[in-house]
Amino acid sequence: MVNRQFVLASRPVGMPKESDLRMVETPVPALRDGEVLLRALYLSVDPYMRGRMNAAKSYAPSVEIGELMVGGGVARVVESKNLGYEVGDVVNLQMGWQEYAVSNGEGLRKVDPNIAPVSTALGVLGMPGLTAYFGLLEVCGVNAGETVVVSAAAGAVGSVVGQIAKIKGCRAVGIAGGPEKTSYVTEECGFDAALDYKAATDYPAAIKELCPGGVDVYFDNVGGPITDAVLANLNARARIAICGQIAHANDTQPSMGPRMWRHILVARAKVQGFLVFDYAGRYGSALEQLGQWVRSGQIKYHEDIVQGFENMPRALIGLFRGENLGKRIVKI
Amino acid sequence: MVNRQFVLASRPVGMPKESDLRMVETPVPALRDGEVLLRALYLSVDPYMRGRMNAAKSYAPSVEIGELMVGGGVARVVESKNLGYEVGDVVNLQMGWQEYAVSNGEGLRKVDPNIAPVSTALGVLGMPGLTAYFGLLEVCGVNAGETVVVSAAAGAVGSVVGQIAKIKGCRAVGIAGGPEKTSYVTEECGFDAALDYKAATDYPAAIKELCPGGVDVYFDNVGGPITDAVLANLNARARIAICGQIAHANDTQPSMGPRMWRHILVARAKVQGFLVFDYAGRYGSALEQLGQWVRSGQIKYHEDIVQGFENMPRALIGLFRGENLGKRIVKI
Repeated sequence: MVNRQFVLASRPVGMPKESDLRMVETPVPALRDGEVLLRALYLSVDPYMRGRMNAAKSYAPSVEIGELMVGGGVARVVESKNLGYEVGDVVNLQMGWQEYAVSNGEGLRKVDPNIAPVSTALGVLGMPGLTAYFGLLEVCGVNAGETVVVSAAAGAVGSVVGQIAKIKGCRAVGIAGGPEKTSYVTEECGFDAALDYKAATDYPAAIKELCPGGVDVYFDNVGGPITDAVLANLNARARIAICGQIAHANDTQPSMGPRMWRHILVARAKVQGFLVFDYAGRYGSALEQLGQWVRSGQIKYHEDIVQGFENMPRALIGLFRGENLGKRIVKI
Repeated sequence: MVNRQFVLASRPVGMPKESDLRMVETPVPALRDGEVLLRALYLSVDPYMRGRMNAAKSYAPSVEIGELMVGGGVARVVESKNLGYEVGDVVNLQMGWQEYAVSNGEGLRKVDPNIAPVSTALGVLGMPGLTAYFGLLEVCGVNAGETVVVSAAAGAVGSVVGQIAKIKGCRAVGIAGGPEKTSYVTEECGFDAALDYKAATDYPAAIKELCPGGVDVYFDNVGGPITDAVLANLNARARIAICGQIAHANDTQPSMGPRMWRHILVARAKVQGFLVFDYAGRYGSALEQLGQWVRSGQIKYHEDIVQGFENMPRALIGLFRGENLGKRIVKI
């Protein structure tokens, strides 16, 4: 049986090209005792993957040239020599960009199809949902009545951030690109307001208009001039979580902007970079809560599904063009 | 009896001019029951005063045109109708830029001349020392063996930050302008290393050389390119206290620089703007500890004394030129 994989062919300079990833075919190895064979149902593309394609030091090791691209997936057990798994079980794991994976069970999480479609294990009930949950509730902390601003608000993380903020009694303001996304954010996800940064010219004034009482919490997925504008509108004791900087993912030289630390000082604000993995010990209870909110309809989600394994590179590249609404996943 | 005062004559644009402050003479009012008459011994000039001269909203109200300039002082009781104070007592208070002040006792702190010279109540045993203490130990938190970098290291706050870091078993690295200051920092204050930013060209490389193990804690008094360089050398879980941004005190337009939030994200760093006033309830125990360190010689300090009340404006302006070594105070 043949396994198709994508390996890193070359390190991208700026925006990745499809040719930076190469499809290879390898045989699926025979199972040993204790192992399961998994067939991918859905694979994830996420902005963090761009960082792994660089040689530069980051919080996680780089993918080496010729190595399997990293990433999460939802897969079905198609063969099992592990007593903990039966054929047909659906699991979530870091399986990389490939159609089949062999696992000894380590790092697998069973996905219950009765809670929600199993694809949600890559989105609202997976890493992006957990990132929103811990970033908003633990890194920032929110109090009812506060104003919460989130960038990339129509994305997998941002859309959940605003909805949790609403559940907690906050005013939620999203920033997104284009009317389709801002409508999604306000009309589907129930945010109080949204800024279309593609239509705005004076970002600080636009933020001020949407947040007349100032900004108490900022969940930043983007960086760049949008973040500068939010920082110019901070309230005293504001909290800022830096979750991503997608505006800078493909920078080939440092992005220049106004130095904003005086605003952080004057507001006595707290800024923190965080990774969801720091909260790994508490995923279980967080997923339970997120699952309740999804089932009750208090959290809505949208999946942006790309068909076919062969389209993974272009699915990833599209994230940096802002193509996706909600969580982009590839159906295998 | 005549009281000389400095009032704000005009709001500075950029670097303050002496003419932005005007000396006026007013009669010293007669005391009412419960009041004391205070004669200034030493008055303080501090970088924060520049912000108060602006109309712009900040953490504290602006000084209005024609109003007495704000500031701390050490004064002697020369007349008392308050049972708590005797003639000859020395006190620390926010008395503003004037030779005499009348107080009902509120906000006065008695200064014990047996602990250290009373002028230290404006420096190492006053607001700057407390700022160093709480900023390093509470905002940042330090562990033995960590590398602590402080900017404006030869200043009133920075010199104490590095010495407390040494007491706590850290490696202390200071950044200051010119060989006199860097020598002071390493030879008098016992820092492990100091960077003369006026002599350096490649700041990030210079920081890397002095902090080969990376930066765990950064106490920022300055901002600007020096701060950018430190942020490029952060270790995982670095903590940054923003205490001041003197490089930007006189900016007339936003200072531009590379956007550094990606570094904060990758390091999972925490950045916090703070004011010492947030710790007002704990000044007593902190001053006791600082006093012990000063008496034991574990904390050294330098006072940069300017003679004469009439020289207060130029004493303040000199801070922004980096004239001072240690705490600048004006002897009345």
